[in-house]
Amino acid sequence: MVRETVARYRIDAQLDYEFAEPADVLLAMEVIDGGDQLLVEDLLTVDGSGPLAPVLGEESLGRRTWLQASGSFRAHYHALVDVTRMPPDLETLGVTPHSQLPALVVSYLFPSRYCESDRFEQFVAREFGDVQGGAKARAMADWIYDHVDYVSGSSDGTTTAGDSFIKRQGVCRDFAHMLITFARAAGIPARMVSAYAWRLDPPDFHAVVELWLEGAWHLVDPTRLAPIEGLVRIAVGRDATDISFMTIFGAAEMTAQSVMIEQVDA
Amino acid sequence: MVRETVARYRIDAQLDYEFAEPADVLLAMEVIDGGDQLLVEDLLTVDGSGPLAPVLGEESLGRRTWLQASGSFRAHYHALVDVTRMPPDLETLGVTPHSQLPALVVSYLFPSRYCESDRFEQFVAREFGDVQGGAKARAMADWIYDHVDYVSGSSDGTTTAGDSFIKRQGVCRDFAHMLITFARAAGIPARMVSAYAWRLDPPDFHAVVELWLEGAWHLVDPTRLAPIEGLVRIAVGRDATDISFMTIFGAAEMTAQSVMIEQVDA
Amino acid sequence: MVRETVARYRIDAQLDYEFAEPADVLLAMEVIDGGDQLLVEDLLTVDGSGPLAPVLGEESLGRRTWLQASGSFRAHYHALVDVTRMPPDLETLGVTPHSQLPALVVSYLFPSRYCESDRFEQFVAREFGDVQGGAKARAMADWIYDHVDYVSGSSDGTTTAGDSFIKRQGVCRDFAHMLITFARAAGIPARMVSAYAWRLDPPDFHAVVELWLEGAWHLVDPTRLAPIEGLVRIAVGRDATDISFMTIFGAAEMTAQSVMIEQVDA
Amino acid sequence: MVRETVARYRIDAQLDYEFAEPADVLLAMEVIDGGDQLLVEDLLTVDGSGPLAPVLGEESLGRRTWLQASGSFRAHYHALVDVTRMPPDLETLGVTPHSQLPALVVSYLFPSRYCESDRFEQFVAREFGDVQGGAKARAMADWIYDHVDYVSGSSDGTTTAGDSFIKRQGVCRDFAHMLITFARAAGIPARMVSAYAWRLDPPDFHAVVELWLEGAWHLVDPTRLAPIEGLVRIAVGRDATDISFMTIFGAAEMTAQSVMIEQVDA
Repeated sequence: MVRETVARYRIDAQLDYEFAEPADVLLAMEVIDGGDQLLVEDLLTVDGSGPLAPVLGEESLGRRTWLQASGSFRAHYHALVDVTRMPPDLETLGVTPHSQLPALVVSYLFPSRYCESDRFEQFVAREFGDVQGGAKARAMADWIYDHVDYVSGSSDGTTTAGDSFIKRQGVCRDFAHMLITFARAAGIPARMVSAYAWRLDPPDFHAVVELWLEGAWHLVDPTRLAPIEGLVRIAVGRDATDISFMTIFGAAEMTAQSVMIEQVDA
Repeated sequence: MVRETVARYRIDAQLDYEFAEPADVLLAMEVIDGGDQLLVEDLLTVDGSGPLAPVLGEESLGRRTWLQASGSFRAHYHALVDVTRMPPDLETLGVTPHSQLPALVVSYLFPSRYCESDRFEQFVAREFGDVQGGAKARAMADWIYDHVDYVSGSSDGTTTAGDSFIKRQGVCRDFAHMLITFARAAGIPARMVSAYAWRLDPPDFHAVVELWLEGAWHLVDPTRLAPIEGLVRIAVGRDATDISFMTIFGAAEMTAQSVMIEQVDA
Repeated sequence: MVRETVARYRIDAQLDYEFAEPADVLLAMEVIDGGDQLLVEDLLTVDGSGPLAPVLGEESLGRRTWLQASGSFRAHYHALVDVTRMPPDLETLGVTPHSQLPALVVSYLFPSRYCESDRFEQFVAREFGDVQGGAKARAMADWIYDHVDYVSGSSDGTTTAGDSFIKRQGVCRDFAHMLITFARAAGIPARMVSAYAWRLDPPDFHAVVELWLEGAWHLVDPTRLAPIEGLVRIAVGRDATDISFMTIFGAAEMTAQSVMIEQVDA
Repeated sequence: MVRETVARYRIDAQLDYEFAEPADVLLAMEVIDGGDQLLVEDLLTVDGSGPLAPVLGEESLGRRTWLQASGSFRAHYHALVDVTRMPPDLETLGVTPHSQLPALVVSYLFPSRYCESDRFEQFVAREFGDVQGGAKARAMADWIYDHVDYVSGSSDGTTTAGDSFIKRQGVCRDFAHMLITFARAAGIPARMVSAYAWRLDPPDFHAVVELWLEGAWHLVDPTRLAPIEGLVRIAVGRDATDISFMTIFGAAEMTAQSVMIEQVDA
């Protein structure tokens, strides 16, 4: 049997940008507080910005902050968080009947900007039609791992799951998009999660998947690059467009980025 | 000055499908009750289905119902609804600063399956950069009306705003996708609305746009095919994928469809 | 050992269109005369057209005719042709070194409108990298046959090989595009051929592939719907855009089409 | 009246690549000899390659050479060439009737990998339908210049004319693809030409367009970055895929590139 782990993580992340002109920015680098991850302490500090305006009302999907950046911009985030999570045993989980899906889950059945699940129904039926329930989700994640190479720099901000399916290369973003796409094409709600990922090498923001099975969201990482129990979730959404750590309404140049997460004694 | 109108509409819509095999269906043909449209009475009746399971919890985005259809399927919807709405004077409305956007509005800033707004930022800046506030939204709607032909059958379920922008042809779905795309590319939240549309000829389900200006959603119909005050909203979402009146998880053949809306004495 | 067959085929094909306005048409329904197929007799007759202007100078790629159609247009083509062809044993054929490719073959290495071979290099290396020479081409054709369903009406004039690769459905045009795409992505010249196809059921124009192996073009039909020895080639090109039997520079409606090919005594 | 110019150009171009593994390369950096550009002398020298195998038989479309590169690869090309060319006065040229197009020109009417002209017929009819003959071609080139920004690095090897039409940014390759696409969509044969371009700043390989008007090919540069009389044509093809100066069947890294062209005394 898989044991639930409890671990404390320390996170320090810093983003540096240069803004030639002031621009609105939606920042999503603070972690979700609740459920299987509980905040002990955290602090977001920003230089080169006007006042911070937290987006209120949907904290379960991530804590996001509006700000107006200009000139030399730096955001620093520090957190201590306790994660209590058992890696899901997908094979044992059943698919939730559609009629029992909560309203907030239904929208994750549909295609989105980078996940054209409507185009993959036939492929998914052919390739995974014989496997049922959570085992189908596991088979999908395995298929992606077996058929796609993780290659840094092989995609960009316009790359969709269909593009990656053809190219057979991608990064975490693309692996997640493919699994989300396959799952939705099979009628399984799926969404994308940005996370700090313990033991991810090289350290960076990570993107993984949550699948709705047996009445709850379950984390899956089709890249297999980081342990599930070491993920600290930041933001949740339909695909990469919803969960970017830094959405810039204008132009800016990244000058430096560092992401650190380590296990510490509780 | 434009006057607020009050009018009562009678709606009768019927969908007939043949299902060779049983399939889950998400039905969205009931109208929203609240705000500028108040239900007097309505009734949804379905033949060829197991029990109806309303999706609870997000009625402001539409009333949706799960069912399992098989064989000869018929859904009939009847409603009486009072609409009290003033057509918006877009030019007079200001763009809401990003930092004041409610959480539920923020997601309508981002690209979606059929609205690749991330690809249109340069076009929108070039074409509409000199116009500000609601006048920019009006200019966008006018541009679409002037540059795109309404041609029945010119698009299908995979057509995106980018496809329509190139082809310069589309139906209401495509006109809406283009306006949503332009608005989001300019930082204005935009979403899609399915509606019963009084005086639409030939009668059919209609698709229009809501733009978030000056702190509220405002209806716009870039096709100009139906008066704003005669729209009865059914469902709201990011684009066509969220608001389909009949999402079928399987295969079926439409055998007949009728949509009727008429003004009646209150 | 496979024996060379000799057979005589009688072809009768007829196209009927209605032109609301006069339009230029490039007609390609006459068969190639030479090599493994020798004309005994043929006759093209056209009603509803100005004078016919054969395109001179590239008969090895097909015999094409310009005309200006108007009103009720009918083209009828009759031919008697002797075909002497041995189905190729692909596995025994070597890949021609690039440096030995004739000038006219080199262009068939590159991507084209419907064959985005540049996007498939990684897939082809992963999936067929262990097979060499003609056996690689055979493995590609088999893969397509095994992974894609032939479904009438499942594609249209904008469908590319990439679209079909995702959708896993297509018609002869799409099967051909996929094989051409895979071959080019592996450095094997590949082109598309329109043909009258004996025993194709239902009768229609057919589309197949020619691969350049061991210094010559070899016919392959990834749909397996018609015997190679019963193909009578019409036109040759990079993909569907080059070999359409009827390219219309304007608008017209097809009102009827019949294609007949039968074996007759020599 | 515009005068025919006569000028001598000296060209020196050098390409440096690193090949981790040996790969076939198709090199196209030698200039076309004939018509309005006559070679005085030229020399191609290559290090890090096996024997050079010129592709024989289609020199009017460019002189191309197969080689197998490995390790540190360097190609150097030197030429002296006399160019005698009058910039075309497009407005005075008539469109050639389709029925008079030579066989080798017909194929340039059709869409290609990066020029999806089949998708632009409606746009072209709407935007340029009122202008006839060469004036239509001029209007198309002007439209592109007015509506698209030249931005280095704004496209990559998968960018099509449709992508650029949406993005409103591109480099010479994309400007050429758009003009080719518009022209073909209007029934005017159009092809792409790589060239050494006198006064192009910064110096680089250039890509321009040839349109078939009044029975001959005429050079057009929609970027307006270099004078027509200073272009020395290298290779001709349907779009960028046919005319790349270096087509690599494998992987390599460019380490340096220099392109120099200057006017010298005859």
